[in-house]
Amino acid sequence: MKKTALIMAGGRGERFWPKSRQSLPKQFLNLTDDGKTMIQLTVERILPLVAMEDIYISTNRDYKALVQAQLPGIPEENILCEPMGKNTAPCIGLGAVHMKKKYGDAVMIVLPSDHLIKYTSIFLNTLSDAADVAEQGGDLVTVGITPTYPETGYGYIKFQPDSVRGRAFAVERFVEKPDLETAKDYLATEQYLWNSGMFIWKVSTILDNLNAFLPETCAGLRRIEEAIATPEEQAVLECEFAAFKSESIDYGVMEKAGSIYILSGSFGWDDVGSWLAVGRIKKSNEFGNVVSGNVVTVDTKNTIIQGDKKLIATVGVHNLIVVDTPDAMLICDAGSAGDIKKVIENLKICNRTQYL
Amino acid sequence: MKKTALIMAGGRGERFWPKSRQSLPKQFLNLTDDGKTMIQLTVERILPLVAMEDIYISTNRDYKALVQAQLPGIPEENILCEPMGKNTAPCIGLGAVHMKKKYGDAVMIVLPSDHLIKYTSIFLNTLSDAADVAEQGGDLVTVGITPTYPETGYGYIKFQPDSVRGRAFAVERFVEKPDLETAKDYLATEQYLWNSGMFIWKVSTILDNLNAFLPETCAGLRRIEEAIATPEEQAVLECEFAAFKSESIDYGVMEKAGSIYILSGSFGWDDVGSWLAVGRIKKSNEFGNVVSGNVVTVDTKNTIIQGDKKLIATVGVHNLIVVDTPDAMLICDAGSAGDIKKVIENLKICNRTQYL
Repeated sequence: MKKTALIMAGGRGERFWPKSRQSLPKQFLNLTDDGKTMIQLTVERILPLVAMEDIYISTNRDYKALVQAQLPGIPEENILCEPMGKNTAPCIGLGAVHMKKKYGDAVMIVLPSDHLIKYTSIFLNTLSDAADVAEQGGDLVTVGITPTYPETGYGYIKFQPDSVRGRAFAVERFVEKPDLETAKDYLATEQYLWNSGMFIWKVSTILDNLNAFLPETCAGLRRIEEAIATPEEQAVLECEFAAFKSESIDYGVMEKAGSIYILSGSFGWDDVGSWLAVGRIKKSNEFGNVVSGNVVTVDTKNTIIQGDKKLIATVGVHNLIVVDTPDAMLICDAGSAGDIKKVIENLKICNRTQYL
Repeated sequence: MKKTALIMAGGRGERFWPKSRQSLPKQFLNLTDDGKTMIQLTVERILPLVAMEDIYISTNRDYKALVQAQLPGIPEENILCEPMGKNTAPCIGLGAVHMKKKYGDAVMIVLPSDHLIKYTSIFLNTLSDAADVAEQGGDLVTVGITPTYPETGYGYIKFQPDSVRGRAFAVERFVEKPDLETAKDYLATEQYLWNSGMFIWKVSTILDNLNAFLPETCAGLRRIEEAIATPEEQAVLECEFAAFKSESIDYGVMEKAGSIYILSGSFGWDDVGSWLAVGRIKKSNEFGNVVSGNVVTVDTKNTIIQGDKKLIATVGVHNLIVVDTPDAMLICDAGSAGDIKKVIENLKICNRTQYL
């Protein structure tokens, strides 16, 4: 069966401010040393498994031009523009009806556009195994990440070690972000994986499940499907999306569905959740600094500096994140990277939209 | 006797980088809340005691235009431009011969151009008392600052408590910057004052002393005096300055002279020796921050931010100094303010003269 991919690129992430803005979210940023953006790396990574013309990008229509500029090989009709964000269930459903219209049925690989993966061949093998399970059993399949430490910022998925299909385990349940003690317990059992947001299923499977658990959304999706390539397509899309309930695929389908399988992945996954990730991804110098741009450091340690044209001189600072852009600069303690959103809240309150 | 002032403004201080540059030293910066530069405040402060036309500014010729722009009331002939810096002894000697030529003799008040004084009336009373001692006894007079803590960055002057003239004590000796233990001992004796670099004497007195202790310099100064207002003035100045030994007035005269008097001053003196001074001078907010410019602070404490046009957002940082300028930004731990010079050394080594 044909393999397709839906790369979800509608996020408006704020955790990479000031580099990321509402007009340039994280998936369109180059955060690595190789000069490619996150979404470019995501597409490139999947190409041995899915042909370029079978890759779909779902995004907000505000970002269509960015997608076209960064991914000139993706056919324009494969860029699915949501009129507004309604979380992942409508997003995935939109992808599914487009694929149904074109292919009848297919194995559909759903991927976030803004994660990094170190070991591509292992990643592709895992997806290939997942596709086999999805195609043969007609089940919902996901890839979980083998946890390496008790992270409290991710959801976890518990699997049943004695219920195996191919290289997959049956999922016992999805769990929300745990507290630290619970996360430690999860790790100790060796039966929990991190929820990576990667899904593999047949188009027919996910549409059946949407019909079962989100019937109103599914009815709307069918109306969108009928309008594809007609003069009414855009109007129907607008109308149905406006009516959709905002719902995640996890909550709307996965946590309710009966038969879900999971493959555990150990392929150097990183969700690049904050500027701290840059310290993990890029090579640091002998002082633990990751420095780019026009920078002079004196007695500076374990510091991430993303400089720009302006000369940045640091003296006697440790564990700092410094990010310069033409109009805004962030100076953040490494332990406070999660509080960058407070800057954005402040800017919103003050209506300083030019910086958002 | 007429009172004159010589304000020494030839310094090229590096401690306020990146605001201060070789082309714009500290004395020409506005570092306070009142919109005036250090040299403007220095002139304004002395005006009740010395008429504008009797105030002389000695500076490097590179800064003549800055002096004229910032102090339009100072007569052009009172701006004494040194062809090159030769420390304070030639600088003061140059002022003295100009004053001798114009006034015959006068009481000459020598002041740094880059210090702050909180209580101007007490300062002026102290200078007035000092002028009385200088005029009546024909002695070298200086003003020492009553120490408030064991500073190791200043020179100290020991006075003789039982040898009084007017409101002045006889100086026993000048001492170099002490270590911390010695500084604590100095404070405990209550017989040491900080060397402020302010001097009061008659023009004739300082020239006699220069003649006694730096005879070659004094001979050169006499040749400069003879050339004032002649077509050869500039050529003689260049020639003599090139030949002058670089010498401080402290080492060249004060530490050798027999009869020196000192008045103790408690007028809220601050030598504004580093960016930390801005934290003392300007009003801080409830978090101990001193902030100006385009700034958003989140969980930020005891931090000095001199913003410019670019938005600076700080998150979770403490005890930091952040100074933005159009082409360079400093991010410095408060405890490392003394190491800003290492940035400048680095820039010099790399020949990045545009930032110096």
